[in-house]
Amino acid sequence: MKTPAIVLNFKAYTQVVGEKGIKLAKICENIAKENRVEIVVAPQMVDLGVIAKSVELPVFSQHVDPVEPGSRTGHTTPESVKGAGGAGTLINHSEMRMRIADIDFAVEKCRQLGLETIVCTNNLNVSKACALVNPDFIAVEPPELIGGDVSVTTANPEIVRNTVNAIKDINPNVKVLCGAGVKNGKDVAKALELGAEGVLLASGVVKAKNPKDVLMDLISRIK
Amino acid sequence: MKTPAIVLNFKAYTQVVGEKGIKLAKICENIAKENRVEIVVAPQMVDLGVIAKSVELPVFSQHVDPVEPGSRTGHTTPESVKGAGGAGTLINHSEMRMRIADIDFAVEKCRQLGLETIVCTNNLNVSKACALVNPDFIAVEPPELIGGDVSVTTANPEIVRNTVNAIKDINPNVKVLCGAGVKNGKDVAKALELGAEGVLLASGVVKAKNPKDVLMDLISRIK
Amino acid sequence: MKTPAIVLNFKAYTQVVGEKGIKLAKICENIAKENRVEIVVAPQMVDLGVIAKSVELPVFSQHVDPVEPGSRTGHTTPESVKGAGGAGTLINHSEMRMRIADIDFAVEKCRQLGLETIVCTNNLNVSKACALVNPDFIAVEPPELIGGDVSVTTANPEIVRNTVNAIKDINPNVKVLCGAGVKNGKDVAKALELGAEGVLLASGVVKAKNPKDVLMDLISRIK
Amino acid sequence: MKTPAIVLNFKAYTQVVGEKGIKLAKICENIAKENRVEIVVAPQMVDLGVIAKSVELPVFSQHVDPVEPGSRTGHTTPESVKGAGGAGTLINHSEMRMRIADIDFAVEKCRQLGLETIVCTNNLNVSKACALVNPDFIAVEPPELIGGDVSVTTANPEIVRNTVNAIKDINPNVKVLCGAGVKNGKDVAKALELGAEGVLLASGVVKAKNPKDVLMDLISRIK
Repeated sequence: MKTPAIVLNFKAYTQVVGEKGIKLAKICENIAKENRVEIVVAPQMVDLGVIAKSVELPVFSQHVDPVEPGSRTGHTTPESVKGAGGAGTLINHSEMRMRIADIDFAVEKCRQLGLETIVCTNNLNVSKACALVNPDFIAVEPPELIGGDVSVTTANPEIVRNTVNAIKDINPNVKVLCGAGVKNGKDVAKALELGAEGVLLASGVVKAKNPKDVLMDLISRIK
Repeated sequence: MKTPAIVLNFKAYTQVVGEKGIKLAKICENIAKENRVEIVVAPQMVDLGVIAKSVELPVFSQHVDPVEPGSRTGHTTPESVKGAGGAGTLINHSEMRMRIADIDFAVEKCRQLGLETIVCTNNLNVSKACALVNPDFIAVEPPELIGGDVSVTTANPEIVRNTVNAIKDINPNVKVLCGAGVKNGKDVAKALELGAEGVLLASGVVKAKNPKDVLMDLISRIK
Repeated sequence: MKTPAIVLNFKAYTQVVGEKGIKLAKICENIAKENRVEIVVAPQMVDLGVIAKSVELPVFSQHVDPVEPGSRTGHTTPESVKGAGGAGTLINHSEMRMRIADIDFAVEKCRQLGLETIVCTNNLNVSKACALVNPDFIAVEPPELIGGDVSVTTANPEIVRNTVNAIKDINPNVKVLCGAGVKNGKDVAKALELGAEGVLLASGVVKAKNPKDVLMDLISRIK
Repeated sequence: MKTPAIVLNFKAYTQVVGEKGIKLAKICENIAKENRVEIVVAPQMVDLGVIAKSVELPVFSQHVDPVEPGSRTGHTTPESVKGAGGAGTLINHSEMRMRIADIDFAVEKCRQLGLETIVCTNNLNVSKACALVNPDFIAVEPPELIGGDVSVTTANPEIVRNTVNAIKDINPNVKVLCGAGVKNGKDVAKALELGAEGVLLASGVVKAKNPKDVLMDLISRIK
């Protein structure tokens, strides 16, 4: 995926089940094409293949299991994500935490397959630790930005900047996404200004009455 | 799904990743139509939606997570399986065991959504226990039939018959699938004769050099 | 354990860490001896051996892992519970749910070792299912009795009676404990009247200012 | 714990259930006192309190759950380990892997309570990642040293030295234990020479016909 990027996690919301998920992916595709911005979608697991066939966007899995192909009923291997047309995957999302040895395995396996990886992290120590397993991206959710009305623009700017710097310090190859505190285009701009190379968000778009409007606002100050 | 049925679990085998999985599903569709037999496929998670759109067969998920829709990154809700065109789901496969309260939740939620459920079990006590949560099917793997060269036809016939009877005794509404010891058409016929209403199998077909031949043999004595 | 019984789960409360747990176990021992009632304690995991050596009460584990002895760092085998002086174990507590095949394994292994088993369940279907794996006791928490001020005495008496009957119907050898809605001696009496053979409780005693008073009240109407 | 140290993990072996575990801990205590060497024991979970009361050795837990005290049936909090007399804990053993955010939580909580932490790791990346959450020790199991007859003395010495250096590079406060490839006193000496400050082992002692002899050999070249 190119940066700066908007990564949209569909989670398991009812608003994007089945055809509704395909529709939102197509809205993203139109906006991305018309505005020449990078939007990445992470649809529900069972829709990944359909959506990868339906849109010209990088389609990411929400998760991969840290296992080899084989007798693994119900598991999603990096190989199956690749085979279904996926371009990458989220790893270790706060709703799907993984063991560090498994994150290491999954990141390495994805690299071999040409899948990009976004490892999600919850604080500074964990972000730095995960930077050492060499993912393409770390999506940080600084605790100070979670919940309430705090956003990247209203919070102490040092919070994001320090996180970016600490990660770059450990591993300059890792790019940072801002995974919390982003609600509008102003927030996106601020996140980029502070060193992030994109944002990861979900409900703000998926559960919006008019996702297109929210997306248009989000990309409004990019470039 | 109608009975008798052949349920084919794709597991996470490399032989059915992506397009290869769609191809196998189409082979199943052709055989099912031409021979008027019931074949159900359970593709890899990320391919479920694609395959449900590609074939006129009941397409089952290999697993559902026992959770409500919402902030559940990486989870597969029954709702998302339904939305993607799924007709049902395996539950509690030996490679994806679930807690009993979660099996109960998942079976009940699937019923409300009109998804059929196949709960997999490993012995007599567990089969009877799971029969009480009212799934549509129980797929039993009698320990005596696992591994080696033992099949339904060579084993003591009482093993399958007793399992079927014990389950029917607890809950006559539950249908039984034979989940082990089935390799060819003779085994299928024997399983049905002993009271099963179908079979659940995986590697014997998926990893075969010529899956079509194996499938043709499997259905050869049905009806 | 003899019935009727009061089973006291220490959980991971700070009020019963270390010496404080030993002290509460001794209070239970005194009350049990002086009043000839059966009180069972389930201390914190790391205190089990100490408390089993300190009091003449049946000491239960809060959990056992469904594994054989061996290379299992951090796991608690039924064998280790037995070796430490335990008399039995809770299994499948709502805060430590297990897979049905694992419950089956653990109950069977405990029986072979002479450890008694209390399997905790959350509703009627699950209670019936678990009765089929032949534990000594099922501790039910009817959803109607959880939270708020509802107790066995104020709720519709049919709720407890029906649960007891349904379990006995499936497996008459299983005894039922009331695992919710019991706060005082009146509730204990009512639970026994409705067919339970004991109660399982935790915070009402452990977090009480004066656990002895609460225990004295709880046993006041037994016999 | 002082260094150099021999850390002995009892795992869930039958050889150290109940009284037999207390006996082995006392053998360790005698050897430690008579030879003025540091031996740490990690007994089975339910024996931790008993053994902490029985011997004057640092007694470590094999695991702690990354949870706060409270309604956590069957969980072992750092607080309960401390309360039972524990001096520290293993974390993330290969048989009890934890999520990175949980390792971070557990290490931090243990530090606040004055419990020492040994985080186990399986390769270089994971070792470096875990060094960033500031445990007191990292016990590494270099893949090259696992299984077979390879030991620290027969393997390429760079393997251990590079691991130690890489960890020290990331976080000089972290001490390194050698968690694989140590079978005798010669191996211990070599591990220390290569930069480790102790060793972590299990079956070599616990399953030995004569654990005392093995321990005497292990400490023979310390100092």
